[in-house]
Amino acid sequence: MQKGPLLYTGKAKNVFGTDTPEVLWVEYTNQATALNGKRKEQIANKGQLNSAISDLLFKYLTKQGIVNHYLEQLSPTVQLVKQVKILPIEVVVRNYAAGHFVTKYNAPKMKHLVPNVHEFYFKDDALDDPFMNDEQITALEIATEAELVTLRGQADIVNVLLSNVFKQIGITLIDFKLEFGYTTDHQLILADELSPDNMRLIDDATGHSLDKDVFRNNLGDVTVGYQTVLDRLTTLFTEK
Amino acid sequence: MQKGPLLYTGKAKNVFGTDTPEVLWVEYTNQATALNGKRKEQIANKGQLNSAISDLLFKYLTKQGIVNHYLEQLSPTVQLVKQVKILPIEVVVRNYAAGHFVTKYNAPKMKHLVPNVHEFYFKDDALDDPFMNDEQITALEIATEAELVTLRGQADIVNVLLSNVFKQIGITLIDFKLEFGYTTDHQLILADELSPDNMRLIDDATGHSLDKDVFRNNLGDVTVGYQTVLDRLTTLFTEK
Ligand SMILES: Nc1ncnc2c1ncn2[C@@H]1O[C@H](COP(=O)(O)OP(=O)(O)O)[C@@H](O)[C@H]1O
Ligand SMILES: Nc1ncnc2c1ncn2[C@@H]1O[C@H](COP(=O)(O)OP(=O)(O)O)[C@@H](O)[C@H]1O
Ligand SMILES: [Mg+2]
Ligand SMILES: [Mg+2]
Repeated sequence: MQKGPLLYTGKAKNVFGTDTPEVLWVEYTNQATALNGKRKEQIANKGQLNSAISDLLFKYLTKQGIVNHYLEQLSPTVQLVKQVKILPIEVVVRNYAAGHFVTKYNAPKMKHLVPNVHEFYFKDDALDDPFMNDEQITALEIATEAELVTLRGQADIVNVLLSNVFKQIGITLIDFKLEFGYTTDHQLILADELSPDNMRLIDDATGHSLDKDVFRNNLGDVTVGYQTVLDRLTTLFTEK
Repeated sequence: MQKGPLLYTGKAKNVFGTDTPEVLWVEYTNQATALNGKRKEQIANKGQLNSAISDLLFKYLTKQGIVNHYLEQLSPTVQLVKQVKILPIEVVVRNYAAGHFVTKYNAPKMKHLVPNVHEFYFKDDALDDPFMNDEQITALEIATEAELVTLRGQADIVNVLLSNVFKQIGITLIDFKLEFGYTTDHQLILADELSPDNMRLIDDATGHSLDKDVFRNNLGDVTVGYQTVLDRLTTLFTEK
């Protein structure tokens, strides 16, 4: 597999083409951003940790029958994925109230949300990824009603599977963000990454954050939590 | 009818009790606000114009069978209304893209939205009336799914009726905000006001705004447009 031209420089990954059609070369970087990119830092080892965690979680979802873009890990920070046309909608699933959900709506911190809450954000950096409701999204033809049904359904299945995985290793999945995209044969599948950059994870024993909140809230070295997540996932998946 | 104690000082109206149970004395003030209250001005005659327009529109809706809080006009700026427990949800209906809908989502200005778009805002000044989706609202128990169905349905009927009224007087109803509340016998009914403070209205002949956008965008004397709306509504309803 040969690395091709740089196609996209993201906030946490660089995306390259390859010599194989429809296969992308994704490099996880050490960059951490907050405030939608306004705050930026380099954090040693973060790319490698995210890549390893994402690798384990995508492989697990694949085994459970969730069709997704993941192909394989090439090196500690490089993954091959199936190229998709990303639907410009970020899907957030919330199991417990945290982050913006608490500050914007004065929700009780860690309130258990039953049923879980879905939120759609228009993936558009220039507009600061605005939150939208279903009717706005369909009126502006960003996605169709049928696509939103698929996004909610897929996100719920991923939520059940990942929540169970984390529960087995003493971690609660608070919320997470997913991205989906179309393959050339018009399948809408799960893409992007599955890492503590895009999830809130709480250690059940200590109540501590094992995710990017440590960076957002300046609580110390974010990679300590990421390493904990990776170690426990590795143990879990090795046992099986 | 005797005026009672001041119960609430709003951004555009003062609400008093009366000597009659469940009847409120509402005084329309000349205050205009923008940026959720951060900008404030006194505009001579605005209270009177809004009160007169609201009087005509509520009477029209009542005639069309829309149950609502309106009772009667007592003086040029005073109305009696049935007291309700306001549901803390502002319902916005959009027929064409304007205002925040354009700037936040880069929607084409004046795009015809078919079907129309509904938005719910959590009526909470301290939180700056945040935009919410249905799942957030029900998860935080601000309203139930059944209530949201009622709000959408009632808003749609009001939309059809008011759009037709304005069409007959050469005005397009771009968007508007409604509030609803519970009577003591648990009916969820239309409340608050129906005025150019809470609607966008465009003069079909000139394309000019006849609403609070004139104030928001510093385009001159806002009451000129309000007077036009009132004059045309008066003519229409007198003819009938
Ligand atoms: N399979 C895929 N095909 C095409 N693009 C993808 C795929 N998976 C993820 N992407 C995109 O790669 C980009 C790079 O990732 P990232 O650094 O997280 O960017 P961002 O700054 O948008 O969060 C993202 O915009 C994401 O949508
Ligand atoms: N029938 C009613 N019973 C009780 N409260 C009402 C009724 N109609 C309107 N209200 C409330 O009266 C308040 C005063 O109006 P306004 O000046 O527009 O206030 P605001 O600053 O909240 O927009 C509003 O909060 C509105 O919800
Ligand atoms: Mg990303
Ligand atoms: Mg008001």
